[in-house]
Amino acid sequence: MLERYGHGGDLESAAEIYGRGAFLDFSANINPLGPPPGVMEKLRDALPAVIRYPDPGHRGLKELLSVRLGVRPEQLCIGNGAAECMALILLACRPRKVGIVEPCFSEYRQLSEQFGAEVQSVYGTRNNGWRAETGEIEKLLRAVDLLFIGQPNNPNGIQYDREVLRRLAGVAERCGTYLVIDEAFIDFIPDKDRQTLLPELARYPRTMLVRSMTKFYAIPGLRLGFAAAHPDLVQAMTGKQVTWSVNGLALLAGEACLVSGEAYERDTINLITEQRGLLAAGLRKLGCDVTEGEANFLLAGLPAPWTAEKMQTEMGRRGMLIRSCAMYPGLGREHIRVAVKTHADNTRLLDVMGEVIAGTPPRNVGS
Amino acid sequence: MLERYGHGGDLESAAEIYGRGAFLDFSANINPLGPPPGVMEKLRDALPAVIRYPDPGHRGLKELLSVRLGVRPEQLCIGNGAAECMALILLACRPRKVGIVEPCFSEYRQLSEQFGAEVQSVYGTRNNGWRAETGEIEKLLRAVDLLFIGQPNNPNGIQYDREVLRRLAGVAERCGTYLVIDEAFIDFIPDKDRQTLLPELARYPRTMLVRSMTKFYAIPGLRLGFAAAHPDLVQAMTGKQVTWSVNGLALLAGEACLVSGEAYERDTINLITEQRGLLAAGLRKLGCDVTEGEANFLLAGLPAPWTAEKMQTEMGRRGMLIRSCAMYPGLGREHIRVAVKTHADNTRLLDVMGEVIAGTPPRNVGS
Repeated sequence: MLERYGHGGDLESAAEIYGRGAFLDFSANINPLGPPPGVMEKLRDALPAVIRYPDPGHRGLKELLSVRLGVRPEQLCIGNGAAECMALILLACRPRKVGIVEPCFSEYRQLSEQFGAEVQSVYGTRNNGWRAETGEIEKLLRAVDLLFIGQPNNPNGIQYDREVLRRLAGVAERCGTYLVIDEAFIDFIPDKDRQTLLPELARYPRTMLVRSMTKFYAIPGLRLGFAAAHPDLVQAMTGKQVTWSVNGLALLAGEACLVSGEAYERDTINLITEQRGLLAAGLRKLGCDVTEGEANFLLAGLPAPWTAEKMQTEMGRRGMLIRSCAMYPGLGREHIRVAVKTHADNTRLLDVMGEVIAGTPPRNVGS
Repeated sequence: MLERYGHGGDLESAAEIYGRGAFLDFSANINPLGPPPGVMEKLRDALPAVIRYPDPGHRGLKELLSVRLGVRPEQLCIGNGAAECMALILLACRPRKVGIVEPCFSEYRQLSEQFGAEVQSVYGTRNNGWRAETGEIEKLLRAVDLLFIGQPNNPNGIQYDREVLRRLAGVAERCGTYLVIDEAFIDFIPDKDRQTLLPELARYPRTMLVRSMTKFYAIPGLRLGFAAAHPDLVQAMTGKQVTWSVNGLALLAGEACLVSGEAYERDTINLITEQRGLLAAGLRKLGCDVTEGEANFLLAGLPAPWTAEKMQTEMGRRGMLIRSCAMYPGLGREHIRVAVKTHADNTRLLDVMGEVIAGTPPRNVGS
């Protein structure tokens, strides 16, 4: 299985399994435009700074993020990737019971169990557009100490309406549950369509938003994420953080990304929106059942008798990585997830997948 | 206070406090030769790889370290700095009581308390060369669930004899206590003088060695460390680690450092050994009480009536950072720690400290 470490983007395992080195990777959801203009140059110029310790207070990045997001620096906890923010939340809040809305990012369960919590689930299903019933989530909120929800949700890209989030945050306040809204992919959604509680966060002191800076800005190798929450929660989180957990180049890259200008962000969102539509249409033409997600990836059910595992193997042999979703609770053996990339890459994905389905033998398409 | 985040090397706080930007930093103990030859070039060439996720299995670095250290890859846990390794040890072993041998690295206590453990101490004193009595440490080992000991110890640079370590490791096995030997600075000691249990680790399944790769190889901004221990303990540690905790450039730099050749390592050790002697002599000439440490730093007691705080301020105003050790339990207001750097830098430190003691007003010496 390609996901032996639980996630996509594992090129080392891919090389071992498929016996080749060059892959077009649709298994990790990274901005296909690469880092913002000028960021790689700034990183190159800043390389000599690795001989110094990182700023343990993350002061420069907090200041820039604070301005960008309209929150106070005390409301921000910078993490070694969004995953560390989730771990710090669990260490700070010490929930005995954690609720999750499946299918969802596997780390919610993984980390919760890692830190000794018991996990309870509700499910979104294909019939209700993969959204769990609000009443069901509210019931779960009352039964647990902390609840994770993805917005947009991985692996299906769906959003809950802001009105639903407000209701959940309100219930969380009243019943003393922590609500963690994972917004790792929200930057890919046009501003007007983003359903986030960020502007009204002060009203919900038990609600935490987690964001990633490595997906939208295409720097996953550096690790950078943050949480926005009540200052007391932020203090509890940083109190559990290992000193210098966030490396110096990640901090510097984060700052450079935030000042790199709006054009790149607009271009990214336009590209993803347009290409997601084309990719969805192409996958449907191949017989896939594609979910109308709003993120930079698509969940698709393969046409019978294809399984995700079989398709992943056939694609891998042809130099293309896709994510099998067979191990997601709530999904089936036929579910795959593919990233939305450039027009040329998406076209190649559709071509090769078409050949696989048609039974054409492999030829080398790796880049 | 310069150590507002608990450690040296905080140039951002220094800039705020002293109102200037350029410092000669003796407060962090980093190899003054900088990274090994060729490593910065390899990092520069590898920068485009930040658009990919790091290898979650740390396979390349583990393989190289395994060969270098003569242990199996399953005995190694790669961490986001040595500090993360210590945190993972605490998360994996869940000690209720932790023993430490003071004065020592502040993170032993900090992390232990962070994860809810109670801390008990024994002390080394000036009169016994800062080494706690072996019998006292053995008694502590019997009273706690896990014990941290620095080898060489920070901030005094002293080593315990291998025979003493064997005895402690044996007691740890018999009474079911975990023994964590922090070897973060051991690479600076000539091979023949290193007192380590690494070659006989298999005999002590409850003993863990923690090493840093960022001090000797001068890449603290990237974060990289590892622990060597029994495979079961390593598995328990990685089970508590956040996915992709170690960033891609750190892994790559670690690999590059390990294949960079012996000359750099020999040169470093020769430089540190020679310069430590000269620096100690110079500090003594200024009236300091200097400990005969074996690491790349020196613990010194300032001549009365100087306090560490006052000296740190005077040096900071002159563009030089030193570490105040006044907050270390077991040390006094007069204790400072200075890194061993190049001959030119050490000479400047001694010159400026001499001027401060003589009462000469500040002039700009920052680089």
